[in-house]
Amino acid sequence: MSGIVYGIGLGPGDPELLTLRAHRLIRNAQVLAYPTLAGQDSFARSIAAPYIPDGIEEIAIDVPMSQAREPAQKAYDLAAQRFDAHLCAGRDVVALCEGDPMFYGSFMYIAARLQPKFKVVVIPGVTSLTACAASLVHPLCAREQALTVLPATLSGDELHKRIKQSENIAIMKVGRHLDKIKSVLADLNLLEQAQFVAHASLSQQKICPLATLEGNAPYFSIVLLNRTSDPWL
Amino acid sequence: MSGIVYGIGLGPGDPELLTLRAHRLIRNAQVLAYPTLAGQDSFARSIAAPYIPDGIEEIAIDVPMSQAREPAQKAYDLAAQRFDAHLCAGRDVVALCEGDPMFYGSFMYIAARLQPKFKVVVIPGVTSLTACAASLVHPLCAREQALTVLPATLSGDELHKRIKQSENIAIMKVGRHLDKIKSVLADLNLLEQAQFVAHASLSQQKICPLATLEGNAPYFSIVLLNRTSDPWL
Repeated sequence: MSGIVYGIGLGPGDPELLTLRAHRLIRNAQVLAYPTLAGQDSFARSIAAPYIPDGIEEIAIDVPMSQAREPAQKAYDLAAQRFDAHLCAGRDVVALCEGDPMFYGSFMYIAARLQPKFKVVVIPGVTSLTACAASLVHPLCAREQALTVLPATLSGDELHKRIKQSENIAIMKVGRHLDKIKSVLADLNLLEQAQFVAHASLSQQKICPLATLEGNAPYFSIVLLNRTSDPWL
Repeated sequence: MSGIVYGIGLGPGDPELLTLRAHRLIRNAQVLAYPTLAGQDSFARSIAAPYIPDGIEEIAIDVPMSQAREPAQKAYDLAAQRFDAHLCAGRDVVALCEGDPMFYGSFMYIAARLQPKFKVVVIPGVTSLTACAASLVHPLCAREQALTVLPATLSGDELHKRIKQSENIAIMKVGRHLDKIKSVLADLNLLEQAQFVAHASLSQQKICPLATLEGNAPYFSIVLLNRTSDPWL
């Protein structure tokens, strides 16, 4: 019998925002995998750290810092080979994923390489999106409203067009795109309504109206915006 | 000292998909509140049931089955009054919310009535959206793609327009809107790519390609669709 691959959503960063199932699977893991970025510490591993048993096998998936796809693809190929060896030997592999594995997660690239040869089970997690809304006590969407989630990497023109088309907007991974986002929202006369959250749920969490944000935005930050006049009733 | 209102996301239905924090707060609750629909059993309470202490005070918020807003608003007004009495007496109130409180949740209507008089803390939960994607092992969005979340209540024309504008689409609360959704997707030549999930994470979970779905869809069901040629790489 081959092992099973578990892709586990860890939530936004606070270890208490793991699900009970994620907690149980990590506590019982024999082989644990997680991404690291260009040789740095793993954010995913740091979220799960309070629950990781001593002395288990760990697989660090080192993803190079590059906009090009090929170096990352090689890293996932290599990781899939390391998973394969454990799975064939009948050992389950628990793969840690920041947030939710299917929401901008890199676990999907691992899963694509291992299915259908192996069984892949995904444990959903709390996304940074709902964690930011929780920190602000800010509704993402209500009743018959839509929600549009946009990556900050889109061009200014594309952001402008898509923001105009939706009543509730979340812009993910603000980082170095802050000035572009501010400029697009100012053009649309929406800057005053936008909220900013960085590092939701962590001790360094920062919340402020986007218009008052000084300095830079970290990569893990989100802009939320409701265009409806009153989303609360 | 007044009590604190905790709005707690319970996740999609499986009690093991509660977060560790939600679990802790429910285990220690003195006063627990939850919505019921038109006098029926509470789905929210059923998710949390394994963890609810015996003999605590419970507040059922009975929301009438009606498209009109006023009857529901009266129910939330009444609930807020009952919360108020406990909060003024220094007791925290733990309000249970299916999924995530800020993602199409009714808790926002309670929070709007209690802020700023009382402190409101939201604990984010796993949404049905990511739970459906997990059950399918289906990426919601990757890299520089957007995700559009649409309520099934939108008109056929509105759904058509918005689906055309996005690369990844989730249509929530399919229920009696199934035929309309199938027809819109067929018009757009996208029906074959759409996936259907009902009651994600529960024992009665149902997964199938939308095109093969026979019969009716329950209220708690979602259609997921990627228009990108390969979201997996």
